[in-house]
Amino acid sequence: MKVANLVGSRFKERPSDCVIDSHALMIRGGYMKFVGNGIFSEFPTLRRVTAKIENIIRQEMNAIDGQEVLFPVTMPADLWEESGRYESVGSELLRFTDRSGAKMILGMTHEEAAVHLVREYAQTYTKYPFMIYQIQRKFRDEARPRAGMIRVREFTMKDAYSFHTSQEDLEKYYEVCFQAYNRIFQKAGIPEVVTVASDSGMMGGSLSHEYMLLTPVGEDSIVLCQECDYRANMEAAENKIENLLSGQTEELQCVETPDCKTIEDVCAFLKSDVESSCKAVVYQKASNGQYVVGFVRGDYEINETKLRNLVGEEIYPAEITEDASLVAGYIGPYQIPEDVIYYLDVSLKGLDSVVAGANREGYHYTGLNLERDLDQPEYVDISKVQDGSVCPCCGKKSILIKRGIEVGNIFQLGTKYTKAMNMTFTDENGKQQYPIMGCYGIGVGRMAASIVEAHHDEYGPVWPISIAPWEVELCCLRADDEECKGKADELYKKLQSAGVEVIYDDRDVRPGAMFSDADLIGAPIRVVVSPRNLKESCVEITTRDKSVKEMVPVEQAEQYVKDLKAKLFAEIESQVEEYK
Amino acid sequence: MKVANLVGSRFKERPSDCVIDSHALMIRGGYMKFVGNGIFSEFPTLRRVTAKIENIIRQEMNAIDGQEVLFPVTMPADLWEESGRYESVGSELLRFTDRSGAKMILGMTHEEAAVHLVREYAQTYTKYPFMIYQIQRKFRDEARPRAGMIRVREFTMKDAYSFHTSQEDLEKYYEVCFQAYNRIFQKAGIPEVVTVASDSGMMGGSLSHEYMLLTPVGEDSIVLCQECDYRANMEAAENKIENLLSGQTEELQCVETPDCKTIEDVCAFLKSDVESSCKAVVYQKASNGQYVVGFVRGDYEINETKLRNLVGEEIYPAEITEDASLVAGYIGPYQIPEDVIYYLDVSLKGLDSVVAGANREGYHYTGLNLERDLDQPEYVDISKVQDGSVCPCCGKKSILIKRGIEVGNIFQLGTKYTKAMNMTFTDENGKQQYPIMGCYGIGVGRMAASIVEAHHDEYGPVWPISIAPWEVELCCLRADDEECKGKADELYKKLQSAGVEVIYDDRDVRPGAMFSDADLIGAPIRVVVSPRNLKESCVEITTRDKSVKEMVPVEQAEQYVKDLKAKLFAEIESQVEEYK
Repeated sequence: MKVANLVGSRFKERPSDCVIDSHALMIRGGYMKFVGNGIFSEFPTLRRVTAKIENIIRQEMNAIDGQEVLFPVTMPADLWEESGRYESVGSELLRFTDRSGAKMILGMTHEEAAVHLVREYAQTYTKYPFMIYQIQRKFRDEARPRAGMIRVREFTMKDAYSFHTSQEDLEKYYEVCFQAYNRIFQKAGIPEVVTVASDSGMMGGSLSHEYMLLTPVGEDSIVLCQECDYRANMEAAENKIENLLSGQTEELQCVETPDCKTIEDVCAFLKSDVESSCKAVVYQKASNGQYVVGFVRGDYEINETKLRNLVGEEIYPAEITEDASLVAGYIGPYQIPEDVIYYLDVSLKGLDSVVAGANREGYHYTGLNLERDLDQPEYVDISKVQDGSVCPCCGKKSILIKRGIEVGNIFQLGTKYTKAMNMTFTDENGKQQYPIMGCYGIGVGRMAASIVEAHHDEYGPVWPISIAPWEVELCCLRADDEECKGKADELYKKLQSAGVEVIYDDRDVRPGAMFSDADLIGAPIRVVVSPRNLKESCVEITTRDKSVKEMVPVEQAEQYVKDLKAKLFAEIESQVEEYK
Repeated sequence: MKVANLVGSRFKERPSDCVIDSHALMIRGGYMKFVGNGIFSEFPTLRRVTAKIENIIRQEMNAIDGQEVLFPVTMPADLWEESGRYESVGSELLRFTDRSGAKMILGMTHEEAAVHLVREYAQTYTKYPFMIYQIQRKFRDEARPRAGMIRVREFTMKDAYSFHTSQEDLEKYYEVCFQAYNRIFQKAGIPEVVTVASDSGMMGGSLSHEYMLLTPVGEDSIVLCQECDYRANMEAAENKIENLLSGQTEELQCVETPDCKTIEDVCAFLKSDVESSCKAVVYQKASNGQYVVGFVRGDYEINETKLRNLVGEEIYPAEITEDASLVAGYIGPYQIPEDVIYYLDVSLKGLDSVVAGANREGYHYTGLNLERDLDQPEYVDISKVQDGSVCPCCGKKSILIKRGIEVGNIFQLGTKYTKAMNMTFTDENGKQQYPIMGCYGIGVGRMAASIVEAHHDEYGPVWPISIAPWEVELCCLRADDEECKGKADELYKKLQSAGVEVIYDDRDVRPGAMFSDADLIGAPIRVVVSPRNLKESCVEITTRDKSVKEMVPVEQAEQYVKDLKAKLFAEIESQVEEYK
């Protein structure tokens, strides 16, 4: 392929609407184009990358006995009614009606379709275990698509579903898939992906892991222990807090706290520690608007996911109306109105003298002792872990919060879908059982973007050779120079015949423009043919990451490139999984 | 892969809802499963076939300098409003709104997306020509999906779009693509596909061709000349009719024709020839309900596509109401009400004495001479060609009507989309021009089903080796016999190591069941290992099409299979394009 013919423009200016680097570089490099909110087209350069990622995934899925299938993008609503998700999933599930008025949905995931496909097939235990997967487009009607290919509405995803006759068998396969995922990320050149325990969310099931590429621009917060192997998504991370009792039991007093709207205001006004205060965060149930209050120690934040799981349904930040029983800014657990559901976070446990709202405009309590003043208080974990928190695994104060992009996930689903959709098998004793499922996803486009995020410099992506759009960029610096053009043409042909993927720039442009374009295309190996180099009968061979820069005799160039390519592939294969 | 692990059930009974064989065999063989009206999931066996078809297509598209891209399935309505198709396409375009109420559509084809992708890129003539293509899911809200994978609502399609600076250049590339398509069908084992000129329909543009697999169950009618190369889709076929004048000029007479509702009734009642009658077929404009009457000779049928093209908008069969100016059953061109649009078909030209409706309940005219009695009548081609019609190319009465399944199409689009969407380029003289487009489609699933339709017996598909789910089926007839199982296992490993795709049946089932399953899987080569064959130190090797049936010594089996595989591939490569 010649750069002159490559569809897609490259340019210098960073688009103003691109917040993260991968997005900016993928727009500047002619990788993708915005079509609509959270919807993109892929130019040839990106399509080559995603095709390679798809093939790596396919190889590894086949290697663990996965069988490729294809589910439809559009599905009748009744399939999702069977599982209950037609009702339970929010507006990220796109519902529509067809020409006959039949209710349908756009697939955002395919558990229902997977059960539907195999429930007649897998009726006896002898058919188990098995895994089916597809690589297919999905649509998820995100409220706020952002960050280019990282959070989109339409995307290509590999989703796999395994079926088992026992939890034990699922766990065995889960481990196999866990390792296959590690190999996928390793082969794609991002061995620095870490696994974290995660919240299963709307997928149901119990155990699940996310594969996180650590990067400051990630939208997920990851809780890591610096002392042990503990890693979890913030959404799922347990908060271990041990409060030291003050030992002083104060009297409960209602005091005036005029114009103190935040807990910090109150503490400043009363000259007390934020660590000895009780903060209220108010939500409402999506179903009926009922108020749900989470109380945490003043210096902690609510973890909405944990709270949502406790409530058991969707919640949203509350709007406290005039006629509400709650008094905004002055909410506390003592004598809280009875129509309100409230939860006390573990960060409040053991505090014997705190400041809290008095549920009365302009007043707070001081000296509140939860154990003494509330009726059998219970404590639940609804707060966010913080830097320096206690590790729930090793018990040391060694927690670090990092940010990451989720590039894959694996779930143990249990029987949620098979039960709901009445898929059964006859076990060895002739008894009907529900199969146990696992599911395993990887977003293809997101993975491409994550790789750019993890591997780029200010000039463009630095693609790992296994997924680079081209392995080699050949630059002919003077297309108008007969010898230069002749040698470059010859090398182009030779490399192509040798099975090397070459993008060839023989345009009549300035070297600066040519190199800028090459940086944006990001081929790991670059070969420059120029009159100056040819004077020494050499071509210049460099790597995109600048680790190699050699003058190589023209007649050895082909072999040098082939060896360098083999070396780069070998490096990827042998990369130590440092972060695992 | 072992049959024992292959996801998907095979069974004997023909499903009652399957009208055509390919549908029945693909259900019976565990190829696909019904999910909703016109929507299917693909089991692993079919996915292997479609993946191979996709790869053949990809190879050939790349060979003619196609660059693979990816457009989204979902698109904002404004993209289709730009081209005008958001309004002009009927309810087969699925329109929906997202969570924010924004109007969107599901892509049924991607001309708009293609122009959108490249219109900033291709602003000067130096960027031309180029072709981009994708292999992607599409949704077309068909009113009547039918025939399994042949006419569905959701499907995988390869769609390619080429851009040119001149009609001449488009025509050159169109020819290149025409040949690439022939190679695709040849490589996929269906060289019997024929090309026919077709109507461009809603795609716009002028010249277009369809690739038709001839089969009695096809839903398209194809007009073929037995004497020359002329081929056309019925929708586009020109009707050449030469009427012999009767020479007798009769007087125009209004006669009573009681209870004669059809033209046949009238002719029988009046004892005149149907060939000397004028039949009226009434439609209404979709936009305003205005009546449109097509008049044809009594023994001809209206070609709705031609009539629609003439009218220039959607039409539907009329409902003639009480207050209409038209009198149902008695409509004729003479003194037809003025609020009615009417067209005279070429089959009426030259008739000097015909029977026609009198536009009066219970009356017809006889002796109508169109040239004499109508005011400067014009004749247009709005009738269907019939068996034995005159070939518009060679002029002989050698037309044959056949049926076929459309497996691909190529269109010369002209500037319809680039003009509407304001895509321009600067030509060599600095002038702004609209690029000229071609587009080229192949339905992947439909192609798989068509191949089954063209290549099957009563027991199952007879797959060409290039797209067969597996090249070889290895049957171990007695899994409980140690030697038999041992030899079969060994051969399985050897063939796999040799890069042969083997599906291995080592289940403990009766030979009959094993062979039925093998017939449904349809691998072109079958190897049977049985105690009886092993007594002679042989295995039996046959082909699915029964052309080969050999006893081969065990130690030569691997080589024999490899040679046979190579031979079958070579046959496909060398197949003479008999029908072209």
